Amino acid sequence: MKPHEIEEQSFRIIDQEAGDHGFPPDQWSIVRRMIHTTADFDYIHTVRFHPEAIQAGVRAIKQGKNIITDTEMLRAGIRKADLESFGVQVLCFLNEAGVIEQSKKAGTTRAAAAVDHAIPFMEDGICAIGNAPTALFRLLGLLEQGVAHPALVIGLPVGFVNAAESKAALVKVNTPFVSNAGRKGGTTVAASVVNALIKLALEEAM
Amino acid sequence: MKPHEIEEQSFRIIDQEAGDHGFPPDQWSIVRRMIHTTADFDYIHTVRFHPEAIQAGVRAIKQGKNIITDTEMLRAGIRKADLESFGVQVLCFLNEAGVIEQSKKAGTTRAAAAVDHAIPFMEDGICAIGNAPTALFRLLGLLEQGVAHPALVIGLPVGFVNAAESKAALVKVNTPFVSNAGRKGGTTVAASVVNALIKLALEEAM
Repeated sequence: MKPHEIEEQSFRIIDQEAGDHGFPPDQWSIVRRMIHTTADFDYIHTVRFHPEAIQAGVRAIKQGKNIITDTEMLRAGIRKADLESFGVQVLCFLNEAGVIEQSKKAGTTRAAAAVDHAIPFMEDGICAIGNAPTALFRLLGLLEQGVAHPALVIGLPVGFVNAAESKAALVKVNTPFVSNAGRKGGTTVAASVVNALIKLALEEAM
Repeated sequence: MKPHEIEEQSFRIIDQEAGDHGFPPDQWSIVRRMIHTTADFDYIHTVRFHPEAIQAGVRAIKQGKNIITDTEMLRAGIRKADLESFGVQVLCFLNEAGVIEQSKKAGTTRAAAAVDHAIPFMEDGICAIGNAPTALFRLLGLLEQGVAHPALVIGLPVGFVNAAESKAALVKVNTPFVSNAGRKGGTTVAASVVNALIKLALEEAM
């Protein structure tokens, strides 16, 4: 089987096993890729979409806005070749000069300090967080203060301490979001959402 | 909470919820990090260890052997700062010159072609595969032919087409392995196993 045939076959299996899931086609293309990445059908029940999330994400990509990630691993998982035609940059500030110092000074995580550094770059763009609840909480604070203006927040941190809580707070904001309920999530899941949005943007641009 | 306190608290929660899991301490340090990365306790039941797996992996790290990854995303997820004192290099051949050509010529995936390029670098080292069943099948073929000699294979591809099958084949070989049964797995899970081994190597070196 060729690589694209493997993907198509996987999607057929997921469609079949998911049965009557009730998602509209654009949302399903996101959820299906989350399942494809994890082999975990739980996401059908736990995913949360702001009603304007997909439109906002696809528009940001088509307009060439930045995608900000909380980890280098997430940055590496995004299909950058498919973004070239849109002029989208994928940026991670975790290892930026000043971030470590600032995190030490503020007694916070590097991931949270990196969000502050990202503020001027996230305007009308996409913020994707797959790892650090502290980064998502920091972003929520900046949204509340009205100093950060991303078009879409993909908030999918995983884990046992504050991941579920940070996502429960995200789904209450007015900024478009894709998130999920509970502890699960993670870097590969966040990457799958970004890559599904890129696919939708490519289809619309054709 | 400081970052290391978040991790410790997470591990306490996992220990508590896992209850009497029956793993010896060194294996549990691996399984616990797989759960930490996924928030998925299924790994307690599905993980598979070759009896010499951990010893082989820790020794490879302490001897400064290479870690080969199937994706750049997995490479990005490995704690390279913790590897510096051992002189371990983390290598990915997916974007190497010649790999794309070879994959087209052989009608296979880039991930499988990259395994061939990695042969001389994996001697006594660690091969970690978190994404592509085709890469794991190719590696199994090379092990059978006796032309590849890694000390440890971490085989955790995820998905609906051949992931479970490739892992079922891996757990039958004589080469030390860490793997799991079923569809689940993925890049973050493979990274968690490598990072848990690095932690064990650091503890032994202290």
